[in-house]
Amino acid sequence: MAPTYKLTYFDVMALGEPIRYMLAYGNINFEDKRIPRESWPKLKPKTPYGKMPVLEVGEKKAHQSISICRYLSKKVGLAGIDDWQNLKIDSTVDTVVDIRIAIFNLVFAPESEKEKMRETFDKETLPFYLNRLDEQVKENGGFFVDKKLTWADLHFAATIDSAKEFLKTNPVEDYPHLKALVDKVWNLPRIKSWRANRPVSSI
Amino acid sequence: MAPTYKLTYFDVMALGEPIRYMLAYGNINFEDKRIPRESWPKLKPKTPYGKMPVLEVGEKKAHQSISICRYLSKKVGLAGIDDWQNLKIDSTVDTVVDIRIAIFNLVFAPESEKEKMRETFDKETLPFYLNRLDEQVKENGGFFVDKKLTWADLHFAATIDSAKEFLKTNPVEDYPHLKALVDKVWNLPRIKSWRANRPVSSI
Repeated sequence: MAPTYKLTYFDVMALGEPIRYMLAYGNINFEDKRIPRESWPKLKPKTPYGKMPVLEVGEKKAHQSISICRYLSKKVGLAGIDDWQNLKIDSTVDTVVDIRIAIFNLVFAPESEKEKMRETFDKETLPFYLNRLDEQVKENGGFFVDKKLTWADLHFAATIDSAKEFLKTNPVEDYPHLKALVDKVWNLPRIKSWRANRPVSSI
Repeated sequence: MAPTYKLTYFDVMALGEPIRYMLAYGNINFEDKRIPRESWPKLKPKTPYGKMPVLEVGEKKAHQSISICRYLSKKVGLAGIDDWQNLKIDSTVDTVVDIRIAIFNLVFAPESEKEKMRETFDKETLPFYLNRLDEQVKENGGFFVDKKLTWADLHFAATIDSAKEFLKTNPVEDYPHLKALVDKVWNLPRIKSWRANRPVSSI
């Protein structure tokens, strides 16, 4: 019998959505448990490291969103075929995580500093990364790694899905290869269906 | 013929040392290229994502330190034996990266805020993580995962090796299981030899 999957996270995309994309892509049924902010303090001590998302697979619990995505990628056929390809996938994901951390730093910055930080982010940080990532997709035939769909592509599209809400603009709009990649992922039948039917969340 | 390995990084431990531990553990000869700060602006545009460390394996270049460590773990016999064990290793490493990011934020904070941030770090952030990690090592027979040495253990010991210099104190001093684990790694013959013979760097 297949194990049961349960994802516990806030009612937002953020760190949860890449996991939800992976599960949706693999047609894996899962309980999509969404915790209201006010219930979190009570639940926090019961999670492995006081953090969410947490994925339960049968009786076992996992934490750390990227580690969970990598695990699921192996179950749903989105991992690399050898060690070097996995390294390229991993380093792409880690680079996208660097962008996501910069976005989180922006969101949680003191109000007085936000405007200045946003300017640096828009003019320096984001173009620095996105120019290189756009070039990488161009060189890899429309995907991040070796001309084929991997979890690096799904992770990126899910990150953009959430980031466009945080940033109030789609950050890949002016990067043609990244934009085409995100559209390609969003048009995968199961991802399209997931995005059309998922709970509405603001970020 | 085995490929040649070349690691390019600053003359510090920080993000480079976990990679150096992995190479030393596997008895892999490598060129340990250390770039003076003043040479970095010229080199930066030639690196894959404007960042170091970069590991060259033969003609191929890799970036992102954790991705590189995971790749090397497979070469030197420190990876997990199945997907779930690898997930536990990965989530441990990602948790230690969260600590390292908190330390970096502290180091690069504005002078005016450092004292207050250090207090929060010492009284809240660090105990929050280290209590849980110490418990994890206790539950896993003196290692992070499943009573055996994995790259999560080497990565942690290398991170502490550098963090103790940043923090001017050994952060695991009061955590008996973590301290024993770090000592165990530092006493592995090849790590012991690496630490005794490596170039002296301040952090």
